[in-house]
Parts: sequence; structure tokens; C-alpha cells
Amino acid sequence: MEFSSKLLEKAVSEMSQLPGIGKRTALRLVLHLLKQPKEQTDFLTQALTNMRNDIKFCKNCHNISDIEVCEICANPSRNYKIICVVEDVRDVMAIENTGQFRGIYHVLGGKISPIDGIGPSQLNVASLVEKVKAGNVEEIIFALSSTMEGDTTNFYIYKQIKDSGVTTSSIARGISVGDELEYADEVTLGRSIVNRIPFENSLRNI
Amino acid sequence: MEFSSKLLEKAVSEMSQLPGIGKRTALRLVLHLLKQPKEQTDFLTQALTNMRNDIKFCKNCHNISDIEVCEICANPSRNYKIICVVEDVRDVMAIENTGQFRGIYHVLGGKISPIDGIGPSQLNVASLVEKVKAGNVEEIIFALSSTMEGDTTNFYIYKQIKDSGVTTSSIARGISVGDELEYADEVTLGRSIVNRIPFENSLRNI
Repeated sequence: MEFSSKLLEKAVSEMSQLPGIGKRTALRLVLHLLKQPKEQTDFLTQALTNMRNDIKFCKNCHNISDIEVCEICANPSRNYKIICVVEDVRDVMAIENTGQFRGIYHVLGGKISPIDGIGPSQLNVASLVEKVKAGNVEEIIFALSSTMEGDTTNFYIYKQIKDSGVTTSSIARGISVGDELEYADEVTLGRSIVNRIPFENSLRNI
Repeated sequence: MEFSSKLLEKAVSEMSQLPGIGKRTALRLVLHLLKQPKEQTDFLTQALTNMRNDIKFCKNCHNISDIEVCEICANPSRNYKIICVVEDVRDVMAIENTGQFRGIYHVLGGKISPIDGIGPSQLNVASLVEKVKAGNVEEIIFALSSTMEGDTTNFYIYKQIKDSGVTTSSIARGISVGDELEYADEVTLGRSIVNRIPFENSLRNI
């Protein structure tokens, strides 16, 4: 693309560094900002700068938080003995939305992925293992996405905590509620048969 | 969506003001920035701020430019008597890419759209009419997109300049090169028959 302005080119080029934003989309976004009042750009850049500079992570679960200990970890009605291990804040939000979980979380901040150069040391694994070894934890629920990286991460953590006597579980994989069997992929369908549950349990409403 | 941090929520909310960016996508983009070095956010916000504050528009054609008169308008080998009327800088880039046009442009900055509250006074229409009335223009080529707003804008300008003796033309509408007839929409196919061209002309290679 040939730009008539270096300022425009620079803005488009920085915008297109974001994941899923190509040059054309970036140009559309940047031209939109140009058409809007100057304040909109100021608000956007200010919000991004503030977020990047001042954001904090809960010192207990590593979730994004404005305070030292996040609201979930600070809530006395949560069960601190059940820890759900997730990848990032989006998973926390998704699980919180279901209203089904009353334990606390541990946010790893990613998955082990040798291809992307992400090893266990870049993730919040050590603090989880410490928590488990210190006792006081009854169950670890693995809720990473079901990919090779997710499975590797689960297994890496499992190996380190399995001797400490903590119960480990994994969220159930199976056919989505409301899905047609014929469209389900083989692996999911296979797992849903192997890991079938007593029929009475399926009657529980969420 | 329930956010665990106000800073995060604000950043997502500002990001999702951009067209085509919903809350979920905004969250993905913002979390990506959080994972990257701080500099990436600084580069992005700086580029956007610089662009919004310092960008200039060519005083002749209103195209985005870092200098008073853009490179196209300042190029002595261009034919100043042929003016192609376009909506925005993206159209200039697209037409320049074809290498088929040696005239200059006039960027309206939008289309007349009563629904969005955009009238002729918000667009660079008056300066175009002035240019035509001052003489020195031989042909005006309308190259707006073929929508109701585009047609309205074309016609609005046409009415104001038709008595000044300037030639007016519209870019050809028809079946895209390489497209199958059966998949073309009726209106386009109909227009392509009504506005058929001498066969010899179709032999011209671009």
C-alpha cells in the first residue's frame, strides 16, 4: 500500500500489529478516528496508556485487578480450598458468568508452547505448586482449553503436584448442550462416551 | 461483561468504539497489548495521537497529506484538467494502484447521507464547484461507490456544474473481470448490457 502521508502510514502500521487486524482494517479504523472528534482518539490512547502502565495483577491468583487482592480472592464466601486453573482473565470471566463455581482461580497467563517460546518459567506455575505444597488446597480443577498446549500445561502441573495428595480434576469435555450429535467431531464424541456420567446427574439443572 | 479491573474495562470500552470491533474483540486486542512489551502500546498511542493532531489535508484536492499540496497535485506530469471525484483516501489509493489515471483527484470526505446527518456542507463540495466554475477543468469523473448515497452525491454535484460546460463522466459499472455471469446481480448485469461498449474497446489491455 502506498500512503500519501507518513503519519497515516505509521498509524496504520502500528494498528496492524494487533492480532487479526490487517492493513486494510487498520486503515479503516484509523480513518474512522480521523472523522471523529479529536477527543475520541485522546480517550482511546489515554485509556490504553493508563491500562498498560497502571494495571495490577492479584498477588494471590494473578488475575487482572486494580487492587492488591482481587475481589474474588478477597470474598470470604468463596471456598479457598478449590482452585480452578485457567489461562487468562477471559476464562475467569466466562466461568464467573455461569455462576456455578464458588472456589477461587489461579491465572497462568498463558499455556506452555515451545513453538511460541513460552515455557513454564514465563507462566505463573511456580506459585501454584507452592500453594498446593503449603497444604490448605483440596482440589485443583484444570480448565485450560483442550489443545496440545493446554494438555501439555495441565500435565506439567499435574506431575509436580500429584504427590501432594491434592485431588485433581479436569472440566468435562463433551457435546455442547443443544448440539446435534451428527455434527460433533469424533474426538469430542468419543470422549463423551468414554467419560459418560450417571443419567441421574444429567438431570441436574444448572 | 463483568470486568475485574476498571482500567481494563475502560480500555475495552474505548477500543470497542471503533467500527467493527465488538467487546470481545476489543478485550482480545487489549489483552494482547498487555502481554507485549510496554513500548508497543506507547508506539501505538503515539502514532495515533500524532496522526490525529498533525495530519494535514492537501489544500487543492483535500487528500490526506503531510505537506500543503499533496504529491499528486504537485506532480507536473499529471493532467490538472481531469478531476476524479472520490469519497476518501482509500479510493485514491485504489485508483492510483491501477496506474490507469493521470489526472488529479478531488476527495469529498464522505457521501451525502441524510440518515447519518451528513449534508453537502460537511463535504468538500463547494471547493469542487468553485474549481469547475473558475474554468480550467475539462472533465469531472464521478468515482463514488454505487449506492443510494453515492448516486445522490453525484447528482447533487452534477446539478451544480452541468451548466459550466464541463464534461462529466462516471466510472463504468459492469461485471468484474473474471466473474461468472450467472453469479452477477441483476442490476449490475442489466447496466452492463445497457452500457455495452464497442468490442474493439474491450480488447484494450490494461
